[in-house]
Amino acid sequence: MALVVHKYGGTSMGSVERIQNVAKRVAKWVKAGHQVVVVPSAMSGETNRLLGLAKEINADAQDMSPRELDMIASTGEQVSVGLLAIALQAIGQDAVSYAGWQVPVRTNNAYTKARIESIDDKRIRQDLDAGRVVIITGFQGVDAQGNITTLGRGGSDTSAVAVAAAIKADECLIYTDVDGVYTTDPRVVENARRLDKVTFEEMLEMASLGSKILQIRSVEFAGKYRVKTRVLSSLTPHDLDINIEAHSGTLITFEEDETMEQAVISGIAFNRDEAKITLMQVPDTPGVAFKILGPVAKANIDVDMIIQNQSTNGTTDFSFTVHRNEYKKAMEVLETEVKDAIGAKEVIGDDKVCKVSAVGIGMRSHVGVASLMFETLAQSGVNIQMISTSEIKISVVIADKYLELAVRELHKVFDLEQDAQIESV
Amino acid sequence: MALVVHKYGGTSMGSVERIQNVAKRVAKWVKAGHQVVVVPSAMSGETNRLLGLAKEINADAQDMSPRELDMIASTGEQVSVGLLAIALQAIGQDAVSYAGWQVPVRTNNAYTKARIESIDDKRIRQDLDAGRVVIITGFQGVDAQGNITTLGRGGSDTSAVAVAAAIKADECLIYTDVDGVYTTDPRVVENARRLDKVTFEEMLEMASLGSKILQIRSVEFAGKYRVKTRVLSSLTPHDLDINIEAHSGTLITFEEDETMEQAVISGIAFNRDEAKITLMQVPDTPGVAFKILGPVAKANIDVDMIIQNQSTNGTTDFSFTVHRNEYKKAMEVLETEVKDAIGAKEVIGDDKVCKVSAVGIGMRSHVGVASLMFETLAQSGVNIQMISTSEIKISVVIADKYLELAVRELHKVFDLEQDAQIESV
Repeated sequence: MALVVHKYGGTSMGSVERIQNVAKRVAKWVKAGHQVVVVPSAMSGETNRLLGLAKEINADAQDMSPRELDMIASTGEQVSVGLLAIALQAIGQDAVSYAGWQVPVRTNNAYTKARIESIDDKRIRQDLDAGRVVIITGFQGVDAQGNITTLGRGGSDTSAVAVAAAIKADECLIYTDVDGVYTTDPRVVENARRLDKVTFEEMLEMASLGSKILQIRSVEFAGKYRVKTRVLSSLTPHDLDINIEAHSGTLITFEEDETMEQAVISGIAFNRDEAKITLMQVPDTPGVAFKILGPVAKANIDVDMIIQNQSTNGTTDFSFTVHRNEYKKAMEVLETEVKDAIGAKEVIGDDKVCKVSAVGIGMRSHVGVASLMFETLAQSGVNIQMISTSEIKISVVIADKYLELAVRELHKVFDLEQDAQIESV
Repeated sequence: MALVVHKYGGTSMGSVERIQNVAKRVAKWVKAGHQVVVVPSAMSGETNRLLGLAKEINADAQDMSPRELDMIASTGEQVSVGLLAIALQAIGQDAVSYAGWQVPVRTNNAYTKARIESIDDKRIRQDLDAGRVVIITGFQGVDAQGNITTLGRGGSDTSAVAVAAAIKADECLIYTDVDGVYTTDPRVVENARRLDKVTFEEMLEMASLGSKILQIRSVEFAGKYRVKTRVLSSLTPHDLDINIEAHSGTLITFEEDETMEQAVISGIAFNRDEAKITLMQVPDTPGVAFKILGPVAKANIDVDMIIQNQSTNGTTDFSFTVHRNEYKKAMEVLETEVKDAIGAKEVIGDDKVCKVSAVGIGMRSHVGVASLMFETLAQSGVNIQMISTSEIKISVVIADKYLELAVRELHKVFDLEQDAQIESV
């Protein structure tokens, strides 16, 4: 008998029929002797509908009270938990739903992007011990003053992992519309392989690099509290044998050696919609990085890679990447507020680039990963424009037309293909 | 300067544009120096949509956990308060929204039909004193264990009056889609007159008789706590002079003499969809009424009028009316569970009847109202099938084909027409 948390995304909760399927799956787990807490998202489209109403009322979203936005947006999950409770009761499984404030899930006061501070497990445990399924709203909590807060988009993943940490669950199962974490996007590389296990550090790099399976903060949470978290598909039939389900998908682990046996590199991640910007011949003085990125951050532009190389003759070139949608705005900020102020010679940019990364915890102890990556790209005629590395990741910026080519070649050279299909390559 | 509560129904909150109109009206009141608390309903159709989802999941509504239904249904008003706060802020008026549990509005634990027990006015007063409009969800509260409860359909009226009582508001303005309480339905009698004032006892009789302007419990609440309550139209332009608005609609008062000057009868109320049922020759023994109505109540059938006349030869005829939709069910219960058990001779019924009532606090001190009513109906050829009276009301059951005729004739004979139109009659 295990104590598990199930998390279901908006697609899994997207219709009455799908909610009934979720209920059947959960009931099956209970019948097999497990205690289950469920954290569902809002029905797909609902959060957008609600925020759309607010935007219709006040087109200038900057002016809008984030407190009121949270008041509105949090209702989507509240409807979901009630409907799921009713669906479970309809098939004879006792269940009870709670909004975040009822548990309570305590957060700080940062509306629309709140952080969970604590979760009281008392009420949850009482209900579980009474044989009930406990259903808790994802995405939201309550601050010390009793105001409703939300955790930001994708926050239900974080809610689920945090609940799992609070009740010391044996495992947190994230049911989603993919059946696990892959070595790369199967739409780009046909024989991409599903990983049985991935370390949470690798998952962290994959998530932030655009794999988009889990909200990155949920992965951080899983790491911090060592919550065994499994990503698996909610689209597989729910009459599947429970033992199969409990071993399917991809498990995010904390023991390095479990995943270390075979692969140096676990996957090839990529981001399509990048733009790069370089300030040429920036005087290399203390504080110059802040003088460049301060105004950019102030304009609410997220910066991804940042690269500054060794200076020559007292100047250096300073580069960074942004999302393609923010390229124009970023260029304008640099031209008007930064360039002359810091005495840079020129601002150049390119919004036709992408980022490709090799991620793997095995990289730490293996030399030669970077050189194999660069050699492979060179042989394919792909020019590398920028390079950035971390302990378990190497990222390159290349022209976006080479994205598929680069991902496929790297996937091949690092032996990531499915076994069955290696024969046919 | 006054402290007022505004209540807006689902139609007034039915679209983004209408919510913006509500905001303009509220802001106008604040600019004129008043403190305003607003209690809005869910956007029209929203509560039905939410409960419809629940019913889709569990077609057999009887099995559904009322706790979960309240969890779901309460979200409609939560969206409304957030949107209205945003609409007020967008036009420069500081505002803050609260769900019932945040105030808190304490209720008992009777899910889907909870009763308000207390309302804490501390948070409301602090916000009002800080210059904010306070927006509180209608229809809902929280029980002692922190569960969300709802007050039942139309409960937002009760919420508004209860909030007005708690903060000792000068007046509770119920904005609705009619511009006040009329002497009868203007669709039946063209020259029906709007009443400037009506006593709460009269309003109570009118509401329960199907005038449907205010939820009856809100009128009881207004009476109990002596809340001056005004019914007025939200469809009049919100740039109306505030002094006009403050004196429009119909005021529900507690001082008899204010409304006593002219009329004996204040209005003619009616209910179209009635059915009557009679048990013939029921042995007149103690407890027989309970033996008849117990099984009916157990089948969840609401009973309206109940009439039992003097017995002759040890038996009596026992009659009552139900909503037409429940006629068949009620007949079945009586035939199978009651008739033989109590030794009644026969069960007869008619679902083609209606109820017409003359209501007026002046009736108390005026003899002859009943006889004038019966005489008028007789002269129009309307046969009276049942009669029931209270201190301020006389109700008759007649064949439903006579409804319009009866209402018009009674409206005329009790001098209820608009002055301007009396000339043309």
